[in-house]
Amino acid sequence: MKTVLFSLCDTASLCFPAQKMDNGKASDMIRTGICQENGLTNGFHPPETDIGSCNALGLNGTCNNACGNCSSSSGGGGSSSSSSGGGGGSHNGIENFHHLQEDVHNNGSPPKRCRLRRRMDSGKKNRPPFPWFGMDIGGTLVKLVYFEPKDITAEEEQEEVESLKSIRRYLTSNVAYGDTGIRDVHLELKNLTMCGRKGNLHFIRFPTHDMLGFIQMGRDKNFSSLHTTLCATGGGAYKFEDDFRTVANLELQKLDELDCLIQGLLYVDSVGFNGRPECFFFENPSEPESENCVKRTCCLDNPFPMLLVNIGSGVSVLAVYSKDNYKRITGTSLGGGTFLGLCCLLTGCETFEEALEMAAKGDSSNVDKLVKDIYGGDYERFGLQGSAVASSFGHMMSKEKRDSISKEDLARATLVTITNNIGSIARMCAVNEKIERVVFVGNFLRINTVSTKLLAYAMDFWSKGQLKALFLEHEGYFGAVGAFLELLKMTDDL
Amino acid sequence: MKTVLFSLCDTASLCFPAQKMDNGKASDMIRTGICQENGLTNGFHPPETDIGSCNALGLNGTCNNACGNCSSSSGGGGSSSSSSGGGGGSHNGIENFHHLQEDVHNNGSPPKRCRLRRRMDSGKKNRPPFPWFGMDIGGTLVKLVYFEPKDITAEEEQEEVESLKSIRRYLTSNVAYGDTGIRDVHLELKNLTMCGRKGNLHFIRFPTHDMLGFIQMGRDKNFSSLHTTLCATGGGAYKFEDDFRTVANLELQKLDELDCLIQGLLYVDSVGFNGRPECFFFENPSEPESENCVKRTCCLDNPFPMLLVNIGSGVSVLAVYSKDNYKRITGTSLGGGTFLGLCCLLTGCETFEEALEMAAKGDSSNVDKLVKDIYGGDYERFGLQGSAVASSFGHMMSKEKRDSISKEDLARATLVTITNNIGSIARMCAVNEKIERVVFVGNFLRINTVSTKLLAYAMDFWSKGQLKALFLEHEGYFGAVGAFLELLKMTDDL
Repeated sequence: MKTVLFSLCDTASLCFPAQKMDNGKASDMIRTGICQENGLTNGFHPPETDIGSCNALGLNGTCNNACGNCSSSSGGGGSSSSSSGGGGGSHNGIENFHHLQEDVHNNGSPPKRCRLRRRMDSGKKNRPPFPWFGMDIGGTLVKLVYFEPKDITAEEEQEEVESLKSIRRYLTSNVAYGDTGIRDVHLELKNLTMCGRKGNLHFIRFPTHDMLGFIQMGRDKNFSSLHTTLCATGGGAYKFEDDFRTVANLELQKLDELDCLIQGLLYVDSVGFNGRPECFFFENPSEPESENCVKRTCCLDNPFPMLLVNIGSGVSVLAVYSKDNYKRITGTSLGGGTFLGLCCLLTGCETFEEALEMAAKGDSSNVDKLVKDIYGGDYERFGLQGSAVASSFGHMMSKEKRDSISKEDLARATLVTITNNIGSIARMCAVNEKIERVVFVGNFLRINTVSTKLLAYAMDFWSKGQLKALFLEHEGYFGAVGAFLELLKMTDDL
Repeated sequence: MKTVLFSLCDTASLCFPAQKMDNGKASDMIRTGICQENGLTNGFHPPETDIGSCNALGLNGTCNNACGNCSSSSGGGGSSSSSSGGGGGSHNGIENFHHLQEDVHNNGSPPKRCRLRRRMDSGKKNRPPFPWFGMDIGGTLVKLVYFEPKDITAEEEQEEVESLKSIRRYLTSNVAYGDTGIRDVHLELKNLTMCGRKGNLHFIRFPTHDMLGFIQMGRDKNFSSLHTTLCATGGGAYKFEDDFRTVANLELQKLDELDCLIQGLLYVDSVGFNGRPECFFFENPSEPESENCVKRTCCLDNPFPMLLVNIGSGVSVLAVYSKDNYKRITGTSLGGGTFLGLCCLLTGCETFEEALEMAAKGDSSNVDKLVKDIYGGDYERFGLQGSAVASSFGHMMSKEKRDSISKEDLARATLVTITNNIGSIARMCAVNEKIERVVFVGNFLRINTVSTKLLAYAMDFWSKGQLKALFLEHEGYFGAVGAFLELLKMTDDL
């Protein structure tokens, strides 16, 4: 058993107060319809197209622009509903999207009003108590987003319990936690306004095999006393639920990973990346090796329908018809975990970074059998170029060839094989769903220019320019952001 | 460079006569329409449904039942033309399907008539001269079919050149040729009538890396003097064309591999497997591990439309709407070559047989990350069982796990990964093309019960019983049979 390498407590002492409050429940959420001026609403508007506050929406209102997303990311048909039948995957995430200034006088029983008043008096205004986290516990990595409030008043700071302060200081003053926790500083989203609070969103990851250590740390530091609701998505939210409960006395708010992925993606795209667009593509994708193939930012305005390809340990392919209507079309188990697992076996490398470094130096054509190796040239009749891969790893059945290749060649071939397979499946799905916009996300794409360019090339080439591959800067964090957004929808303690 | 291991001449001396005749050309083929009673026509009728001879068809006739295939494999709508647009892959192979008794009095110039009479006098009756071969030079294996005439008269035997006799004796009295040539005796098709000759069809394979040795043998034994037309398909027909010409003075008749595949498949299915059906499926595919999952033969009556998945070194997926209308939908480079190449790298094995033996003993769940490894159970919302693979080789990024697995586990995981990926792509294609019958062929399936059962299971499970996986006994030989059939269509020397 691997020892726990990640700890939030390496430098900060978290002294939690004994006070224990109830965790909020999604089912307790109050549905009201008044958009808060500085609330989450703004999150769904790019700054330049902010429509401001929307009209009040009663509990039984029929307004489609539910609070929290008064419009889609920009004007004009953003919520086109697909004609091809949303299927089993539709969800109501956005409909519940509200974390609103509460009219206490019109709400609930006297005790309820009393509790509400207490929360508002304490400055919490029907927001969940700090700290605000969202967590995505995947097959390989745990992704954590943390909101650091930057508008803390002197009075508030005075009242703030020490443990909360410690968490904030520890997370924001470090970029590495223990041996394996990493903060992706370059991804930090600054000056967000969320639920009426201004602050920065931080992006942290650590390996899932350190999850139990993380939970034990939560127990040791009595994290449950902070009574924050822990919104978690990804398979680990289910797998580790009992551990959270029994070890750390924490109840998880479990959320579906694909719901979270979509909401997180739409949110981050809408707020942009510190004034720049979140989305990018490659110009001249048909020349991936040339300097003409340049990364360009773009806006994901009117993003529907989109094919969303999430490449984590495995791969899910979604057709997203509107912000609250999608279906999972297919998936493949040949994903980022396959790349890393095979690379470790074939090259003896230990990390994703190492595997990618090797792949960058290798030549897959020493490993793969190309069309020209079989045909002597192109297979013209079916438009297969001589340089296309006919059989991945096809040369490796020959001892002579095995003896002549490098580990770098093997790493490259593994990367190309996995990437092309995903590209091919994505292309088929896009054609079948008649969707031209293919958005690739997931941590497989992190620091992985080879794969992003290859996917851009493959989409362009095989569709004769019809399909466009898009990428997003916060690659693997959208599930965690989506979980975080769910926290903000919750009006706990009511 | 590997030494040549395969030689037709190990035991027989091939003394070719000096006589050299022109090779026939497809473009020289005479189009007439009279079906020969004992000709190839019969090939396309299963014995029990033989319709006999069809009506005469003039050069400008409009009869759809071109000679050689007066009906499809059995009655009733066998040539349904798909409504979904044949696309680029349609071909005219069957339309040219004729090798017919010639009316010498109505044909051509006096010298031409003279040559024709000479050939008929020699008993050849406008058939290509023996030996009759068809060859499919793939990325990994060369597949060779050889027709052994069993109706040779005493007179004919006396006239037969020694070299021809030697070829026949050598091929039919051995089951292994050199170190790497193998005759699949169990696949021999007996008592066929083809072009008016009765005989047996033999199935032989050897590795493509021995191809140059095969060509050199052809030169050494002056194979070109036999003036047989060498019909070849597969990429190697193009790659090795120059070698055949310059080294052995042999002109190849190059044929498209997918055309040949389909014609060969339809032919073998129509004649059956020595009285038994060629086609089989698995009963109770949902219980692949149980003894209820039994192989059952079936007839591929009315086979259209069918999705044809050819798993060689790489994979092609075809939608076949009728005998002469198909399209290549997609392909994947993750095929049999990938399985063998990866297995060689991961386990140190050397052959396909060895790789499969190891795989049969392994457990892929030690290597792959399953849904339950991530979720702790099923991912119910999207119907993913806990036992489903979430990330192939996903456990292998952990050193601890790598140290705990066996080579057999790795071989099994490789086999399961490749097979499931093909199954998943095939399923998507079948759904999109609205085709329920999925026929898997190719040498990857040879002695590979794990994969055939897995494909049967996958088709059944993911389609909720809508899709049916079918298999054929002559797995990888259909391309070679198709090339052989093209030879029989040719009226050379005219």
